[in-house]
Amino acid sequence: MFHAGVPGTRPKEGEQPVAIQFQILHRDTETKARVGRLLTPHGPVDTPVFTPLATRATVKSLLPQDLEEMGIQMVLSNTYHLHLRPGEETVARLGGLHAFMSWRGAILTDSGGFQVFSLGHGSVADEIKGKARPAREGLPQVLRITEDGVTFRSYVDGSIHELTPESCIRIQHQLGPDIAVVLDECTPYHVSYDYTQASTERTHRWAERCLAAHANLPAESRPALFGIVQGGVHRDLREESARFLAGLPFDGFCIGGSLGKDKEEMYQVVGWTAPLLPEDKPRHLLGIGEIEDLFWGVEQGMDIFDCAMPTRTARHGTLLVSDRRRRWRIGIANAEFALDDSPVDPHCSCPTCRRFSRAYLHHLFRNQEITGIRLATLHNVYFVHNLMAAMRRSIVEGRFKRFKEGYLGRD
Amino acid sequence: MFHAGVPGTRPKEGEQPVAIQFQILHRDTETKARVGRLLTPHGPVDTPVFTPLATRATVKSLLPQDLEEMGIQMVLSNTYHLHLRPGEETVARLGGLHAFMSWRGAILTDSGGFQVFSLGHGSVADEIKGKARPAREGLPQVLRITEDGVTFRSYVDGSIHELTPESCIRIQHQLGPDIAVVLDECTPYHVSYDYTQASTERTHRWAERCLAAHANLPAESRPALFGIVQGGVHRDLREESARFLAGLPFDGFCIGGSLGKDKEEMYQVVGWTAPLLPEDKPRHLLGIGEIEDLFWGVEQGMDIFDCAMPTRTARHGTLLVSDRRRRWRIGIANAEFALDDSPVDPHCSCPTCRRFSRAYLHHLFRNQEITGIRLATLHNVYFVHNLMAAMRRSIVEGRFKRFKEGYLGRD
Repeated sequence: MFHAGVPGTRPKEGEQPVAIQFQILHRDTETKARVGRLLTPHGPVDTPVFTPLATRATVKSLLPQDLEEMGIQMVLSNTYHLHLRPGEETVARLGGLHAFMSWRGAILTDSGGFQVFSLGHGSVADEIKGKARPAREGLPQVLRITEDGVTFRSYVDGSIHELTPESCIRIQHQLGPDIAVVLDECTPYHVSYDYTQASTERTHRWAERCLAAHANLPAESRPALFGIVQGGVHRDLREESARFLAGLPFDGFCIGGSLGKDKEEMYQVVGWTAPLLPEDKPRHLLGIGEIEDLFWGVEQGMDIFDCAMPTRTARHGTLLVSDRRRRWRIGIANAEFALDDSPVDPHCSCPTCRRFSRAYLHHLFRNQEITGIRLATLHNVYFVHNLMAAMRRSIVEGRFKRFKEGYLGRD
Repeated sequence: MFHAGVPGTRPKEGEQPVAIQFQILHRDTETKARVGRLLTPHGPVDTPVFTPLATRATVKSLLPQDLEEMGIQMVLSNTYHLHLRPGEETVARLGGLHAFMSWRGAILTDSGGFQVFSLGHGSVADEIKGKARPAREGLPQVLRITEDGVTFRSYVDGSIHELTPESCIRIQHQLGPDIAVVLDECTPYHVSYDYTQASTERTHRWAERCLAAHANLPAESRPALFGIVQGGVHRDLREESARFLAGLPFDGFCIGGSLGKDKEEMYQVVGWTAPLLPEDKPRHLLGIGEIEDLFWGVEQGMDIFDCAMPTRTARHGTLLVSDRRRRWRIGIANAEFALDDSPVDPHCSCPTCRRFSRAYLHHLFRNQEITGIRLATLHNVYFVHNLMAAMRRSIVEGRFKRFKEGYLGRD
């Protein structure tokens, strides 16, 4: 899909298409942080970057033009949700995801594995993140995990679907992202070492099958492909997984699965894993996006982040602010904001903060007005986007560590 | 608020402020249709005009900039809803409605009477429009209607409120619209002639009290004031009401209340009433906005229209189209649109039609994505706005009747 730097040109016979290119432009001297540029068929992506979620081919409540105006360069869509509705055949017939959602920037699709397994294990992200929760009663959503793949029941209509490494690559190819991701099993926190080990090894075999399926795609429409490191919270498994995947010809690498029960454990897992990944390839920390975690991930040399936090919390009236004492968030529906005519964040120049008051957003949320969700989402997406830009600048200017400490505090 | 054509200037001592001015620019020769310009403290409004509803200080799912980009010049906000939440005191402390919602165009507030009485009579608009429905069981929302005013229970928290002609004017003054409207009783369709007569006479006494309260407002912040003709579906009562109100110094006139059980009866009621209203003042047909009704109302010499239809139906996936055979609407969630990559309406140049397909909107509505509501609302608001602009042009060019017949068909 991308050839010799010219978007949209098909490679000549015998030439190898290059779906993405990654350039590292600056390295921090005090930490592992780096500033890079990911060249995709749909424009460049400056890293470290946070990609907002466009789960069902829309960043909830926003339009592509909102994202363009903010300078967003890449979004993340969800293979699982789009496979169930409207289906990859439909998206393909309508010209692929970019045309379907009218998005000119880059798109990364996840593999669907996270959703399938997180539903299957009885809860969603909390379980993967190690927070204990009882499994849901009733029929499991995941019916069967075998060497071949995973069989699950659709939450939409109860129909039964199978996701294999091969179908996962085929589905993503039909969706048409710039970057696709391999199928992996997201092992939950509360399983044994032995289960995690066996699962991680199967994930490795699935990664190889994904690569083989990927190699068989038509060169001119083949997306880039990222591998995913698993291994739970076990150092030896994480290191083995990172080394194994690093030996395969992926265009980039994700760190996925259970990252532990708290920040400390997560930071450990990433600290073991990141250094073993190829230096010259982009690294994606899947599902991570809290303010502290973004700083910390960048410090560890991670390049790409995604998380439901900014958009999901926005829908519940939680707005990001540059105020450490408030843990960087306010609940706009709280009574204290009823008459507050200041902008959501005094240092923010997003479309919401430029024109609307906290009191107005308070009113909209108290009355369940959709406009409130839109204004809150605009703000939160811009806030994180702007924070990443500030981190990049601080790396270029050699003051990332100071910036981080000033922002988060030393406590 | 408006003086000698210069927005925002305060009148000199002894001079009379002019809140609005109305100029009739063109008259149709075949019908009573006319093209006018309403000058308000917040800019001109070209008539005939359709004012989208900003019930709770937002056109649901849209931002002021969306409306500005479409060329919307006036919105209608709701006294009843804003009185209950956030309260007129709050709006006033935050600088009035324009500042609160960051809207630079004109605002018309209704009196709240419609909401209070339509809730009180056991159902909402359908009852006023003459469609039979049983009254709701349990406590009535309207507790008491007396000569003084109406006492009702808040749907928000059960608290008891009274709305009198004086408080209605005071509340609207605090909200700060360009145009306020008198308190009236909206008599439902299924009441006796005698009740309607007594109620209409009380509405007239309330109109005089509203004028008196209005005259006592500070001149520099006094909005324009419109009277409302009542009288149910009874010709003599409607004519008497129109004549009575026409004799009072209102800045404009609304036709309100029950307009009958079907279009024929509504057209009759308006046909009796409109000719008796002062020729040189703007005329507002309250709550009317179906495609045929807009054409018909314009033909009868009405200047201002408002209706929940375009915005409410948008939220349910009903999109307006210039296709008579479809009765000007499609249900975008219908299976027929799943693979339809054409725009919602082939003749529309709204932000939705310029960039998105029916298939994409279909997908968004099938998945309850908020973005779908936003795209549908943008389209419907623009569609009606654009239709009114086309009607104005056709009047200026002396071909309104032909335009109407071509659009609606002669059947």
